[in-house]
Amino acid sequence: MSGSTFGKLFRVTTWGESHGPAIGAVVDGCPSGLPLREKDIQCFLDRRKPGQSKYTTMRNESDKVEILSGVFEGKTTGTPISLVIHNYDQRPKDYGNMVQTYRPGHADYPFTEKYGFRDYRGGGRSSGRETAGRVAAGAVASLFLKEMGITVTTYTKSIGPIAISEEDYHFAEITENSLYMPNNDAAKKAEVYLSSLLKNLDSSGGTIECFATGLPVGLGEPVFDKLDANLAKALMSVGAVKAVEIGDGVGAASSAGSLNNDEFCIRNGQIAKKTNHSGGTLGGLSDGSTLLVRATVKPTSSIARTQSTVTSEGRETELSIKGRHDPVIVPRAVVVVESMTALTLADLLLENMGSRLNKIKTFYSEGMK
Amino acid sequence: MSGSTFGKLFRVTTWGESHGPAIGAVVDGCPSGLPLREKDIQCFLDRRKPGQSKYTTMRNESDKVEILSGVFEGKTTGTPISLVIHNYDQRPKDYGNMVQTYRPGHADYPFTEKYGFRDYRGGGRSSGRETAGRVAAGAVASLFLKEMGITVTTYTKSIGPIAISEEDYHFAEITENSLYMPNNDAAKKAEVYLSSLLKNLDSSGGTIECFATGLPVGLGEPVFDKLDANLAKALMSVGAVKAVEIGDGVGAASSAGSLNNDEFCIRNGQIAKKTNHSGGTLGGLSDGSTLLVRATVKPTSSIARTQSTVTSEGRETELSIKGRHDPVIVPRAVVVVESMTALTLADLLLENMGSRLNKIKTFYSEGMK
Amino acid sequence: MSGSTFGKLFRVTTWGESHGPAIGAVVDGCPSGLPLREKDIQCFLDRRKPGQSKYTTMRNESDKVEILSGVFEGKTTGTPISLVIHNYDQRPKDYGNMVQTYRPGHADYPFTEKYGFRDYRGGGRSSGRETAGRVAAGAVASLFLKEMGITVTTYTKSIGPIAISEEDYHFAEITENSLYMPNNDAAKKAEVYLSSLLKNLDSSGGTIECFATGLPVGLGEPVFDKLDANLAKALMSVGAVKAVEIGDGVGAASSAGSLNNDEFCIRNGQIAKKTNHSGGTLGGLSDGSTLLVRATVKPTSSIARTQSTVTSEGRETELSIKGRHDPVIVPRAVVVVESMTALTLADLLLENMGSRLNKIKTFYSEGMK
Amino acid sequence: MSGSTFGKLFRVTTWGESHGPAIGAVVDGCPSGLPLREKDIQCFLDRRKPGQSKYTTMRNESDKVEILSGVFEGKTTGTPISLVIHNYDQRPKDYGNMVQTYRPGHADYPFTEKYGFRDYRGGGRSSGRETAGRVAAGAVASLFLKEMGITVTTYTKSIGPIAISEEDYHFAEITENSLYMPNNDAAKKAEVYLSSLLKNLDSSGGTIECFATGLPVGLGEPVFDKLDANLAKALMSVGAVKAVEIGDGVGAASSAGSLNNDEFCIRNGQIAKKTNHSGGTLGGLSDGSTLLVRATVKPTSSIARTQSTVTSEGRETELSIKGRHDPVIVPRAVVVVESMTALTLADLLLENMGSRLNKIKTFYSEGMK
Repeated sequence: MSGSTFGKLFRVTTWGESHGPAIGAVVDGCPSGLPLREKDIQCFLDRRKPGQSKYTTMRNESDKVEILSGVFEGKTTGTPISLVIHNYDQRPKDYGNMVQTYRPGHADYPFTEKYGFRDYRGGGRSSGRETAGRVAAGAVASLFLKEMGITVTTYTKSIGPIAISEEDYHFAEITENSLYMPNNDAAKKAEVYLSSLLKNLDSSGGTIECFATGLPVGLGEPVFDKLDANLAKALMSVGAVKAVEIGDGVGAASSAGSLNNDEFCIRNGQIAKKTNHSGGTLGGLSDGSTLLVRATVKPTSSIARTQSTVTSEGRETELSIKGRHDPVIVPRAVVVVESMTALTLADLLLENMGSRLNKIKTFYSEGMK
Repeated sequence: MSGSTFGKLFRVTTWGESHGPAIGAVVDGCPSGLPLREKDIQCFLDRRKPGQSKYTTMRNESDKVEILSGVFEGKTTGTPISLVIHNYDQRPKDYGNMVQTYRPGHADYPFTEKYGFRDYRGGGRSSGRETAGRVAAGAVASLFLKEMGITVTTYTKSIGPIAISEEDYHFAEITENSLYMPNNDAAKKAEVYLSSLLKNLDSSGGTIECFATGLPVGLGEPVFDKLDANLAKALMSVGAVKAVEIGDGVGAASSAGSLNNDEFCIRNGQIAKKTNHSGGTLGGLSDGSTLLVRATVKPTSSIARTQSTVTSEGRETELSIKGRHDPVIVPRAVVVVESMTALTLADLLLENMGSRLNKIKTFYSEGMK
Repeated sequence: MSGSTFGKLFRVTTWGESHGPAIGAVVDGCPSGLPLREKDIQCFLDRRKPGQSKYTTMRNESDKVEILSGVFEGKTTGTPISLVIHNYDQRPKDYGNMVQTYRPGHADYPFTEKYGFRDYRGGGRSSGRETAGRVAAGAVASLFLKEMGITVTTYTKSIGPIAISEEDYHFAEITENSLYMPNNDAAKKAEVYLSSLLKNLDSSGGTIECFATGLPVGLGEPVFDKLDANLAKALMSVGAVKAVEIGDGVGAASSAGSLNNDEFCIRNGQIAKKTNHSGGTLGGLSDGSTLLVRATVKPTSSIARTQSTVTSEGRETELSIKGRHDPVIVPRAVVVVESMTALTLADLLLENMGSRLNKIKTFYSEGMK
Repeated sequence: MSGSTFGKLFRVTTWGESHGPAIGAVVDGCPSGLPLREKDIQCFLDRRKPGQSKYTTMRNESDKVEILSGVFEGKTTGTPISLVIHNYDQRPKDYGNMVQTYRPGHADYPFTEKYGFRDYRGGGRSSGRETAGRVAAGAVASLFLKEMGITVTTYTKSIGPIAISEEDYHFAEITENSLYMPNNDAAKKAEVYLSSLLKNLDSSGGTIECFATGLPVGLGEPVFDKLDANLAKALMSVGAVKAVEIGDGVGAASSAGSLNNDEFCIRNGQIAKKTNHSGGTLGGLSDGSTLLVRATVKPTSSIARTQSTVTSEGRETELSIKGRHDPVIVPRAVVVVESMTALTLADLLLENMGSRLNKIKTFYSEGMK
């Protein structure tokens, strides 16, 4: 029933349908005193805004966010932050022919079975548009992390068969191409690939990678709310994600202990790891090295090609989806993955504060002066 | 702080350290009237029991479970079910040399940083032994699912480079080899591979696959508590798991929409899918086809080979781990993955009941007669 | 940190400050198929609207609610329902002199200590205006309960020394006087009392009583989420409430078992109780008789009389509060108490569905046809 | 379904039936480094142990607690603390005649309706014996509070008509009489009263009061998880409690703002209140003054006098309860109220740490050195 809330202490609740009057999020638990302006959130939303390139949907939304509560004189007050984005480009007519036809790859069928009927306008709640609320909230979490010295970087690692190896990463190039790839050459190849798919009325999947630096050691709450477990949930809850990997991920299956273990050493007087196959977690807790997580995004389900399908009355039919859709979701999902990662980290950062008696005593003895 | 509880309605809380007096679990929210005997749980625990083959640890534990509450006259009462497994083979001396040395691949370092010190006996709470509590609880969830007509099947898909293709699955063979592989020939090859690793003081990773049939359509709670999202958390929370995939998983990244979409059809008068690339979920809800999930397990971190590491005082040192450890965790983790899947499904099955007003009205009007 | 969410399955998150641009609520977990229009919510909000009589604040707010999501073609869809009420009559200047002066009886001091600063405009988040979000959500819960055959009735039992005995209740009169008392004569006496207080620049407390009929037997989840426990939290979370009683409440302390026990009997072929000292719960579960709960509301803290107080810099000073304030909060809080009761009942009604295996089996076997 | 867990960060899950093999609790989220021995818990359990006087049940239980996890070398490790108390004096035969007869004032009827059947042995899960788990967990919370400089004091304020006024409190006398009253003379009068009730086969109710000092200002999470709201739930969840009051409680209804408001002043250079009608909270947050909460306990439902009742088959009958029962529950419930208060405070103390950005930054910058 109530699945629209994520997080325990730094908590977001999202709401809104693709073609309703608005979508939004409520961020509860954000500490007081964080400088927050609408434009800080807007720059996050702009990264997922449609219409940035010919490979993303042509839907025309300004996605302008308003802060309705929780901020006073430019700073968060510790009370819930209500964020609203009005929908302007609602075109219910575009979807008229899909009222009773279940789109392959979409949630139409199980939504109808679960709830008895559905808001069929553009996918309703199961639309990718729902992620705008996540991104608005993620922007707030990211600002909080930044204040804590934590940086999260996210990019497109692969689109279809075009994958970038670690040694070819040039992070400065991420913002230089519309696909958010850390390698402009790869981005060009990916564009050629996408153009050919478009001609074939087809779509592509891809991979998004995200890393975080500056984390304190020990984030994550054993044994179920581990850092990697919460991240896996956070990322898998994004519509098109079909796999989540930490560090070497699926590669660990065919590795050996002697290769996969990261030996410890002392570097600059600090405990460090010689390698980072684990992706920055040990036993589900952050281990002081770079946190590395990867999400696989399936190819866009909305394709113009004719597909076999059925109607809600149980009749076989055919469907070719018209309207405005991304031939690849990956570039716009980059900031969604970053947002979900930031929300996960912010939440565990707060929960971790209560781990040790001595630290709590120090906290309150200083706080009470 | 409090991360040892999983689930919202069908909820498990686990407790216990590797070498404490006992480990256990409390299952809260199990419906009343479910027939439950200790032996129903025991047969699950026996599947993860050490000492089943030469590829699993020689620790000698009977892992005998006791039911301390929640069952009356052979049936669950609707009150919390307390399950306890006493530890008998505690050998704290085996671990004496590891008090201050951080084992590569283990949680020793971040646990110490988080909590200020740690129970160093055999990994304490971060030991694989913690999963016994999960399995005991998972057995209860599985019995509930069985009553609901839901079957969960789990097996070893790969060990190191020895992977079994879908067309070679013989599910009857799963219980015929000690590696729980659905192909006895592959199991033999895997045994040869493991023997060579053992000689080299090394260990192997692998992959566990799990499928469920009989699920009603619509399980999962958008947008964060989706079926796939909750499963991802459930499985990633298991100690050595580094990746979770649904359906085609990482393969979806390089696929195209026309290949990845599962077209709908009518089969036996029912809505069905021609293929199942999605792994049984659409929009994060069960779609009536087989739910398919896969977990990558990293190679056992405890290896006899000498490794570089550091001490808690920040001094570099070397370590070779003695004692009783599995050269591959995968076979014993099969039932852990099955348990976590069962717990996830049981929880969402209960939450789904409140989806539609009409069904709730029918439920109560009949219930009140 | 994140305390603005109430409920587990039927869940409300409220947001907004007294003088921010808007206040609102997100209702998550409301079953699909419930007819819901803005005017259904408006009639609830109108009951707490300021300016209904000379005994309530003169603040001029239309409190017009907008539904931004979760409703399609006049019915709830099962997705979060976002409700927004814009603030129009913001008069920050009225509160200018209270920026650094802590008002007695208000949250100014602990809010400032907790968060470092506060939105001082009219109490910010700690204003009674926050309850508008609760009432909007409560209206949705009430509609759901109504569909389930459950009726909730709420009224003013006492204002200052003017209390109405059970034998003098005339429920039809509740809506005939502006104090929502079930006895017009008592209401007249209370008005005289309030007038005298007003002259003395003073304010009054009172008692609100609420009863619910039509509940199925067994609502409540032992041992912490009992019906009475959840109700106590729900009602005590309302700003000015200082006591919550179930049934005979504080009177039970001086009673004897032989008087306080409600004997069972058979009435119209059904199990019934001869008396209802328990207020409709046994062991924290609904027992089929009328649920009866009572909340004590303290006198309005904002009084025009001069009071001693201190500033945030720790200097003693005097304060007389100007502006628009209710000499008695009770009448406007009646619908708040009703709303919190409705939210509590809706939540437990959903959770109760998973109690018995047999009922769950029936539910799904029918649901899957 | 799953109602046996209390708390968000400092979290307890209780389990066990009156006549099952054992009862217990799991405490999750207790910070590491807290010295904890079984005898620290035992002294709490001894306060609720039966058989302390002729006014408490003669059931013979040693209530000896065992710590099964979460403690290593005398200190908590930050992992779940499993506490078990074995039941020795199980006498199922005593209850044989109550299998199908519903006891007035007990949960027999709604439990049977909710779950389809019940563990009828001594009330099963709805027995007062369930509170032993709460008290064991409360002892841990109390030790934590003590380390934080917080003291909780609890006592019997009234038994039947024998009530002690504030000016007659002598806290040193609480442990000098078996009724835990802060006035030995009142205790003697109460004993006379109880003796007369016993002769009449009757029982008495009473009032328990609890105060806490040393709390930091600002505990509680607006707007639903306020300190008073969480306390109200905590206390109302205790079996026989029918009312919860904060500060003046029900007395506030007939008070006036000028009397009820606590004026602020400067005392010893600190902000203080001249009076404490509010009971230590403002806006649901701790305000630095003494927290004062009161619970009304109904008369023991189990009385030897013959009562009218019904059977589960719907037949009217009579019942006179034999066996071992307390003529007044209040004295044994004192430590239960204290435990629930301690658990509530411990939980909010942890959550409060994340309120201010600056404090979090200081916490982590020091913690990471």
